[in-house]
Amino acid sequence: MRQALLLAEAAAQAGEVPIGAVVVRDGVVIASAANETRARPDPTAHAEMLAIRRAAEALGQERLTGCDLWVTLEPCAMCAGAIAHARIARLYYAASDPKGGGVEHGARVFDQPTCHHRPEIYAGLGEGEAAALLRDFFAARR
Amino acid sequence: MRQALLLAEAAAQAGEVPIGAVVVRDGVVIASAANETRARPDPTAHAEMLAIRRAAEALGQERLTGCDLWVTLEPCAMCAGAIAHARIARLYYAASDPKGGGVEHGARVFDQPTCHHRPEIYAGLGEGEAAALLRDFFAARR
Repeated sequence: MRQALLLAEAAAQAGEVPIGAVVVRDGVVIASAANETRARPDPTAHAEMLAIRRAAEALGQERLTGCDLWVTLEPCAMCAGAIAHARIARLYYAASDPKGGGVEHGARVFDQPTCHHRPEIYAGLGEGEAAALLRDFFAARR
Repeated sequence: MRQALLLAEAAAQAGEVPIGAVVVRDGVVIASAANETRARPDPTAHAEMLAIRRAAEALGQERLTGCDLWVTLEPCAMCAGAIAHARIARLYYAASDPKGGGVEHGARVFDQPTCHHRPEIYAGLGEGEAAALLRDFFAARR
């Protein structure tokens, strides 16, 4: 989560919403990414999506079986869907997101009968720091 | 929808799940894609995701305001989330997907209070042909 938070901080400095994500397997970092929606521009370029795409490319496989995803904010419905498609084993996220989250809020993607894979979910590690990064970012842009 | 169905048919011939998507603005095709999850490999490479990414790149903007998305199958939660992020104006899909859909089934992404944009939705045009493509594809692989 330390690395995900550093990626989020770098994203903020680049003018992107500060969210970072890291894919890990057996203690080894397979891929990492920060949010890049503005730079590309690409509305799907959330940190989780980019980290999953890069991990699949690095491993040469569609399913990231045995891989964990660490991300600084509760994934939205799009990213939760991608996590299910990728068969991520464990999802760790820092801050929860009542406004846009799709795990414990809104679409609750993993709780649906149409969801073909539900990772183990651990929330809250690094929550304070992740939330502060987002708060400061949006406060500075007002 | 004719073009989306042709893309789906080509995907089947390439060994991919036969789904096609086209982004249109003011009657002009901005981007199109077929499912490419196996070829890349990339679990997020659904036809809708690729078409949205290509349209954003082609237009140089994160939000596809005024653009319509035509796709041969009801989008899953991931793709519905991407459609909301991209601010797609109208969503047209052919077959509905009780097992994996995220629009009228499961996560019902656009009906959630956390969803920041809901397109106009039109379902059923080309339904028979889209469903037959999928049925034949999976039957041949059994």
